[in-house]
Amino acid sequence: MKRILNKETIKEAGKEAKIAGWVQTVRAHGKIVFFDLRDRSGILQVVFIPGSAAYEAMKEIKPEWVVEITGIINQRPEKMVNPNLETGTVEMEAKEMKILAKAEPTPFDYTEKDIQANLPVLLDNRPLTIRNEKIKAAFKLGEAVADSFRKTLKSEDFTEFQSPNIVPAVAEGGAEIFKIDYYKNKAYLAQSPQLYKQIMLGAFERVFTVAHVFRAEPSVTTRHLSEYVSLDAEMAFIESWRDVMGTAEMVIRNMVKDISDNCKKELGLYQIEVPKIGEEIPKIKMREAQQIIFERTKRDHREEPDLDPEDEKEICDWAMEKHGSDFIFITHYPTKKRPFYTFADPEDPDYTLSFDLLFRGLEVITGGQRINEYEKLIQNIKKWGNDTKDFSFYLQAFKYGLPPEGGFAIGHERMVKQFLGLSNLREATPFPRDMERIDQRLSLTKKKDGKKEKEK
Amino acid sequence: MKRILNKETIKEAGKEAKIAGWVQTVRAHGKIVFFDLRDRSGILQVVFIPGSAAYEAMKEIKPEWVVEITGIINQRPEKMVNPNLETGTVEMEAKEMKILAKAEPTPFDYTEKDIQANLPVLLDNRPLTIRNEKIKAAFKLGEAVADSFRKTLKSEDFTEFQSPNIVPAVAEGGAEIFKIDYYKNKAYLAQSPQLYKQIMLGAFERVFTVAHVFRAEPSVTTRHLSEYVSLDAEMAFIESWRDVMGTAEMVIRNMVKDISDNCKKELGLYQIEVPKIGEEIPKIKMREAQQIIFERTKRDHREEPDLDPEDEKEICDWAMEKHGSDFIFITHYPTKKRPFYTFADPEDPDYTLSFDLLFRGLEVITGGQRINEYEKLIQNIKKWGNDTKDFSFYLQAFKYGLPPEGGFAIGHERMVKQFLGLSNLREATPFPRDMERIDQRLSLTKKKDGKKEKEK
Repeated sequence: MKRILNKETIKEAGKEAKIAGWVQTVRAHGKIVFFDLRDRSGILQVVFIPGSAAYEAMKEIKPEWVVEITGIINQRPEKMVNPNLETGTVEMEAKEMKILAKAEPTPFDYTEKDIQANLPVLLDNRPLTIRNEKIKAAFKLGEAVADSFRKTLKSEDFTEFQSPNIVPAVAEGGAEIFKIDYYKNKAYLAQSPQLYKQIMLGAFERVFTVAHVFRAEPSVTTRHLSEYVSLDAEMAFIESWRDVMGTAEMVIRNMVKDISDNCKKELGLYQIEVPKIGEEIPKIKMREAQQIIFERTKRDHREEPDLDPEDEKEICDWAMEKHGSDFIFITHYPTKKRPFYTFADPEDPDYTLSFDLLFRGLEVITGGQRINEYEKLIQNIKKWGNDTKDFSFYLQAFKYGLPPEGGFAIGHERMVKQFLGLSNLREATPFPRDMERIDQRLSLTKKKDGKKEKEK
Repeated sequence: MKRILNKETIKEAGKEAKIAGWVQTVRAHGKIVFFDLRDRSGILQVVFIPGSAAYEAMKEIKPEWVVEITGIINQRPEKMVNPNLETGTVEMEAKEMKILAKAEPTPFDYTEKDIQANLPVLLDNRPLTIRNEKIKAAFKLGEAVADSFRKTLKSEDFTEFQSPNIVPAVAEGGAEIFKIDYYKNKAYLAQSPQLYKQIMLGAFERVFTVAHVFRAEPSVTTRHLSEYVSLDAEMAFIESWRDVMGTAEMVIRNMVKDISDNCKKELGLYQIEVPKIGEEIPKIKMREAQQIIFERTKRDHREEPDLDPEDEKEICDWAMEKHGSDFIFITHYPTKKRPFYTFADPEDPDYTLSFDLLFRGLEVITGGQRINEYEKLIQNIKKWGNDTKDFSFYLQAFKYGLPPEGGFAIGHERMVKQFLGLSNLREATPFPRDMERIDQRLSLTKKKDGKKEKEK
């Protein structure tokens, strides 16, 4: 007999079936014993009645053991229906049972909706805690975010490519780069697929990639990971940088719809609403945002080159109050804060034709137009203090003609964090990497360190 | 006016339109000048007639310059139809033209079907040569291979996840691993997502990932890259290792169909046929394969622990002659040649419940059942000479119960190579990495080295 999933049993009442899964709980009522059996589709109640072969086999079973059970699916009487279970209208009466795997006692009850342990402990025990319904829902939502990104861009004739992780030089400058021993040479982990996206435009005009990128962040915050996933798109033949922002807006609009259609269960577990996105996402210049923040809070950041986390929260509050939107585009960041390939506004060269998207208080997208003129790019590489020789491969793309273009990058985990209202980016990915952790904590002696506290 | 693609012009005869692209060739017939204008959809002939604004603007244009042209789409007279062009029934008469980007002369004619340059030179000039129709077709086919893999597994209720690239220890043993300076610690680049796939089974039962993996291959061959893409799947609650091979076969069967449906143009450019796959892919044990090879060639490899490249070609020839199949599964590899988590055949423990899939003479998939029993896994980690402490994170997945499971990995670039009959794996990826190259050659002094010759 072929195994069926727990959720499929509701259509099999009166029939024999085979199911398999993890024993989540064991309850006895007199001589009758009940299991909650968990598989990937949900939970089914299984009843063991004295006299069956399954009843004898059941006696040694403990929670988390994995079993295969054959039995009869019975419709439950109306008053016994469990409205909290998808399969609550039926149960299985076990006839035979086979043990598929034994398990040791778990260090805490991970089946509770919210496990009673702090985040570092949850992460130390990730291979167990990913089994928790609420925790794994975040990864299911992560899958949906990437799927939606891919679907929208494919429908717009973008081509997906694989951007390399091993790179020869530092694309965006900065010290936060990991070095690799590469045979007898030096190499680095990519901080972004930026240069490769631009190169690929010459072949496909519109490209995207789902890329792992790496930042040697020298601090532990709730908003940064050392390895994260970047949903990166780039498009040529734009009329203006606003075309790029328009595509980013389309991606986000479709994503909100796809998540709202396909992730009801996941949003429900986190008791969070579908984000509000109006007819058009509000768009304001960074200097305007700073003025608004100043007027609202008397915090004067009007000369700052960027918004800090508190500013991002404040301007998102404003966007919700004024426009009823969970999203806001901030545009025209100062030129000196952006990478060498950023396109300066011809009307106001101290500012760039660039944008960030903030979502419920956090930057989740950054994008803009790029310099596509070969000579100008060479000038800027020098101006930013780089050696053009390090960029000679990349520069070929422009030497042989590349039209006006731009692109954007979505922080995958950040998007998941904001959709679900997670308090820490580490909850948005199954295997977070930071300066203190690769799977296990790198140094248990740091346990009492002040920085560690921030992670909680 | 909104730009339309070249291929869309065939429905716009008689109308005004705006197109944009790269000037591929310029031809003069008396005073009339013709451009072949290339965009992502193909080529369109544009005619410049003296007297128009476009005619004057055209005079300074050189190949690879990027332009935007507005004009009238004209149906061509029947005898002027170009059957070699998708847009051969129409042409544009240019009225106005705008230069979007200038370009320098290219080092060779990259628009020929087969560029007259050897592979190292093609790779040195990758940002230019990816624009070649045949070269870029390989990346389009690569996209289709990954899409098909994803589509089949999603239809079978697999969940996609992102496997980390930074790992703490060596999963599969061996020296071919890249070391990273990770803050004040050591870390490594993942050689496979194997351990993370297995961990994820506890949450989702069936998972897959499109992962970049890294091997410090100390030699230059046509079959290896230092960074490659692994299409990796893992499934729990299997009845037997044959369930895993069955899923791999389903993935391949659908992939052949999807490629044959969607990549006609790409296969046509390489003048290669859709692979032959019968009702069932032939399956033989490795020892049987060695016996067949011995009988066919008198090459006696019957005691060898693996098939070498020549053996793989020979047994594929046999599969084609005997079964009319471009694919063959080789099963039951010796236990000692496989990683610690491999499941030994209970009936013959010197051999494993594992399989490789060979495709037109090259291994493209490897897979099999894994050990899911906690105690047995601990024994094997020790037996393989590893420290169980290095695997304590991974081992939690089994400590808390994991049912019988298995999985497989498809070499993405290898699949592309075999679909198109490429002679070198480097042609199957836009940005190949090997011990001698990251974008540019790492050491130009190695040019005259004997190893370099192999790459050609």
